[in-house]
Amino acid sequence: MTQQIADTSSRYQAGIRDHLWMHMTNHQGLYSGSATPVITRGEGHFLYDDQGREYLDGLAGLFVVQVGHGRESIARAVYEQTKTLDFMPLWSYAHPPAIELAERLAHYTPGDLNRVFFTSGGGDSVESAMKLAKNYFKVTGRPGKHKVISRATAYHGTPHGALSVTSLPGLRNQFEPLVPGALKVPNTNFYRAPEALADNEKEFGLWAADRIAEAIEFEGADSVAAVFLEPVQNSGGCFPPPPGYFERVREICDEYDVLLVSDEVICAFGRIGDMFACNDFGYVPDIITCAKGLTSGYAPLGAMIASERLFEPFGRGGETFYHGYTFGGHPVACAAAMANLDIFEEEKLNDHVHEQGPAFRYTLEKLKDLPIVGDVRGEGFFYGIELVKDRDTKESFTDEESERILKGFVSHALFDRGLYCRADDRGEPVVQLSPPLTIGQAEFDQIEQIIRSVLTEAWSLL
Amino acid sequence: MTQQIADTSSRYQAGIRDHLWMHMTNHQGLYSGSATPVITRGEGHFLYDDQGREYLDGLAGLFVVQVGHGRESIARAVYEQTKTLDFMPLWSYAHPPAIELAERLAHYTPGDLNRVFFTSGGGDSVESAMKLAKNYFKVTGRPGKHKVISRATAYHGTPHGALSVTSLPGLRNQFEPLVPGALKVPNTNFYRAPEALADNEKEFGLWAADRIAEAIEFEGADSVAAVFLEPVQNSGGCFPPPPGYFERVREICDEYDVLLVSDEVICAFGRIGDMFACNDFGYVPDIITCAKGLTSGYAPLGAMIASERLFEPFGRGGETFYHGYTFGGHPVACAAAMANLDIFEEEKLNDHVHEQGPAFRYTLEKLKDLPIVGDVRGEGFFYGIELVKDRDTKESFTDEESERILKGFVSHALFDRGLYCRADDRGEPVVQLSPPLTIGQAEFDQIEQIIRSVLTEAWSLL
Repeated sequence: MTQQIADTSSRYQAGIRDHLWMHMTNHQGLYSGSATPVITRGEGHFLYDDQGREYLDGLAGLFVVQVGHGRESIARAVYEQTKTLDFMPLWSYAHPPAIELAERLAHYTPGDLNRVFFTSGGGDSVESAMKLAKNYFKVTGRPGKHKVISRATAYHGTPHGALSVTSLPGLRNQFEPLVPGALKVPNTNFYRAPEALADNEKEFGLWAADRIAEAIEFEGADSVAAVFLEPVQNSGGCFPPPPGYFERVREICDEYDVLLVSDEVICAFGRIGDMFACNDFGYVPDIITCAKGLTSGYAPLGAMIASERLFEPFGRGGETFYHGYTFGGHPVACAAAMANLDIFEEEKLNDHVHEQGPAFRYTLEKLKDLPIVGDVRGEGFFYGIELVKDRDTKESFTDEESERILKGFVSHALFDRGLYCRADDRGEPVVQLSPPLTIGQAEFDQIEQIIRSVLTEAWSLL
Repeated sequence: MTQQIADTSSRYQAGIRDHLWMHMTNHQGLYSGSATPVITRGEGHFLYDDQGREYLDGLAGLFVVQVGHGRESIARAVYEQTKTLDFMPLWSYAHPPAIELAERLAHYTPGDLNRVFFTSGGGDSVESAMKLAKNYFKVTGRPGKHKVISRATAYHGTPHGALSVTSLPGLRNQFEPLVPGALKVPNTNFYRAPEALADNEKEFGLWAADRIAEAIEFEGADSVAAVFLEPVQNSGGCFPPPPGYFERVREICDEYDVLLVSDEVICAFGRIGDMFACNDFGYVPDIITCAKGLTSGYAPLGAMIASERLFEPFGRGGETFYHGYTFGGHPVACAAAMANLDIFEEEKLNDHVHEQGPAFRYTLEKLKDLPIVGDVRGEGFFYGIELVKDRDTKESFTDEESERILKGFVSHALFDRGLYCRADDRGEPVVQLSPPLTIGQAEFDQIEQIIRSVLTEAWSLL
């Protein structure tokens, strides 16, 4: 390291320590000499830090950078739009990039999900869906329908409404009181299914779906507005829907007139394969929430997309949905999204994921020969690897082991060996992968090899 | 209008009608032939629509575009940063643009407000402040302190937490239940002060401040976490703080250990004059929330800036503030903010507002010779003009008159005559002005003349 690099690096660390409050981060180590990784550059599927070290971006930033880093065409679109119209709100006014993007998104959605409400990110898309669900039932004569249902261990965002839907006690309890009436049901973690259902995935899925019906009945359908489900649940480590799950959920929602919100903040835009993951799994929700991959993260943008039925009272019906974000549907962000989606189409990224997803899974499944690997699960370009102490009993780590091995070793070792991804223990300990959609077999192998070396060493520390 | 312009325009209107769900907007008119203005271009303090018509941007987009539209240096910074590092979250990682911007903001803040938590917009800055206030008291042994206080008619954002702080029943009731424990107190509308206080602004201010103390005492200080106040309250039409108001509020907050949150989403970055408006009014809050002008709207970004005392438990104390936004502190948005703040310094925009604010006010006060103008109030480059039916009695419009005259005529007439601004009746009917900080006497005169012609005609319709 040259002196100049060392000086810059030391200045960055001082700036972080004294001023930058990082997100979801424990800062204590900063006072005892720990350094925060400072990422300075991205190119293709690689990230580079302030020491010039290279990392394969196995997380696409944060489930975001679908088309990879440093795309000239998006940078150019962002520059041109900034010069043309840098800012204009959608508050009673409109601008071409938002109009064109709304048309394009409506074209990708299933059914008649034609109504696009832009936000500035995923949490606010969830907030918007929750507010629409409540408002819709209030203006259509069922004001008591306001409760929302979501699944164990699910993450849906951090503003107070989205946080109420989020199902991680460690992220919620210190912020109580939250919004009342947010109920929780089991998720579709088949690896840890109840014993009686452990040998039949379809039966397990129907059981899990029926827990939603049960919750609605316990509360009374007249009090429940919506159920929020990710197509593949991220938090906990990639739980795909069992066969028949969403078909049954759709039936339940229709039966009780509860809105089905497909929270695709992570799963949309090719992460599973299609532009919207509900298409991959063959269901039509009432609302889709999305963000992240919409711009591949090149600019902050999200959307809440609703069916014609939900818009109707606020369209011809004459009611006003009094909701909005200054930066929702920002013209530059919409231009970035259009250029991003152009890349999807030019490079056939959806087809690429459909074709290469099975190879990615096959490559990762090789890790199942390691005694520490309990499960490899996911879909498309989105996988979780669950770590266990005993593959036969599925015994998980203690809190101490999770702290010492997952956070204390695995997380840093993967990064040190050139793989940026996520070691997470919000549920059981998992390593999560969600790379740019542009990678292929060479990178699948590289990812597998780095994880293999780190998990082999981790096993020796147990 | 050429055929080509007409075709494009008609295509835009169809796209809006069929797909774009606008914010805070009634869509019913779209089905009976009303057109939505489509803004296609911005340059300096002008906006242009899809017919090529020019509008003076009297609202800076939405209290946002401080440096004016189309700035090459910001577009260039955005382009370069997109090419260098298009996306990276601040979740346990950092990047140079966020570090540098955090240092710079800490340099502008008063006191020891040194800790910068980035968000993706104003509502989420308020969410973050609310979550920090609750979390801070929970980890320092006073878990019951969770209630929040704000003022009548105040707007603080639309996610569920911020919406609970927002004090506009028409924006809240259809989304109930919200977060419990959000209390309201009177604002500093001196124009409509209680009769006994109507001839002494300082006395009125102390009375209004003491209503906060009263609310805390009614609830019990052990249950109250924070009070949210804008330096100059926007909603209702620009209520400045009476002399002594914030001094007394600071004393009350100290006495009851309630955090003072200065919500500067609108007022920061030169809108009142200084980079932070608390400096203009001489108080030191515990938290500043900001957004909008931070990037002049060129990219979505916000921040919640806290004092050392509030960070301490989450710094050396070892607690984690489990809160975050994927897009909070986006590298491209931070780069836009740096280029924006460079323009502030190069063009001495803060000095310009301090120097020209009185001339802007003087020019607008000429309107007080019109019988429909009840009050002209505000500070810096931020004014509200309250409309009345009778200047002597201060009698306001009926709902029918507000609908017919303010929304049905004034709003459209101002726009048709080339002034984009806001006619609002969330409180009493007001015309609001918040132009780019680059304008001077020629534009003050132009604004005054357009408003004069429209309000003169409006009076004849009463």
